[in-house]
Amino acid sequence: MTPTGFATPEEAENAFYSAFETSDIHAMMSVWADGEFIECIHPMSDRARGRDAVHEIWRRIFDGGLRVQLKVSDIHRTQDALLAVHIVYEHLSTPGENRQYPPVVATNIYQLIDNSWHMVLHHASPTPDNRFEDPQDTDSEQQRLH
Amino acid sequence: MTPTGFATPEEAENAFYSAFETSDIHAMMSVWADGEFIECIHPMSDRARGRDAVHEIWRRIFDGGLRVQLKVSDIHRTQDALLAVHIVYEHLSTPGENRQYPPVVATNIYQLIDNSWHMVLHHASPTPDNRFEDPQDTDSEQQRLH
Repeated sequence: MTPTGFATPEEAENAFYSAFETSDIHAMMSVWADGEFIECIHPMSDRARGRDAVHEIWRRIFDGGLRVQLKVSDIHRTQDALLAVHIVYEHLSTPGENRQYPPVVATNIYQLIDNSWHMVLHHASPTPDNRFEDPQDTDSEQQRLH
Repeated sequence: MTPTGFATPEEAENAFYSAFETSDIHAMMSVWADGEFIECIHPMSDRARGRDAVHEIWRRIFDGGLRVQLKVSDIHRTQDALLAVHIVYEHLSTPGENRQYPPVVATNIYQLIDNSWHMVLHHASPTPDNRFEDPQDTDSEQQRLH
């Protein structure tokens, strides 16, 4: 995060996935907005709502020793002045292993708060096992409303 | 839909769930925005993107004879001038049966287009089996950005 925060939703998103990969709880929570309205939904998990619950869910994941490599593809963006929606595939792999898992589909929503973009929703869910293509660093379409 | 469309995201959402319950493909597609940027993600399904794909996924569901009763609870709203985000639990049941299924968690996003709110994303995913409380018609919190 720059001293002035995240200048774009993309900057916040990069910081989010970087914190995920490095299991950095401080960096992760700096991406999330500071409020009770934030929500985080992991695959097959229930809604974690509010900053304490979101912190706790990530702390457990990181304390559990999760180490993943992440690639994001097929980013679909819709953006307004204060809200940005990104729908992405997350391709997770374990460092040192060649195994590819089915991608996770995630809706990430960012909000402009005090001149910095912050995450207010991460909704991730499983995709079917039978669908997988090599991740491509595509950035397929962007829709700007303003 | 009124002659002038959906005046609020809530009106569009009510029409969406009503079309879902009545398996009305015409009413369903009238809720969705008319564009290639829309996405629909059903539980354990892949992303359906663009109007044709979204139409096809609902047609298959309705043609398959699905009949459900739906209650929505724990609605969490965040809204900007042109975008509205609703995170909800969907409680599905089969008419005539008392069985309760675990709720589905859904992120619904609406966009104001030509003075009418339309759905641009429905991202629904399973919640764990071991969590279920009776649905309440709660409307827990609303965050307005403008």
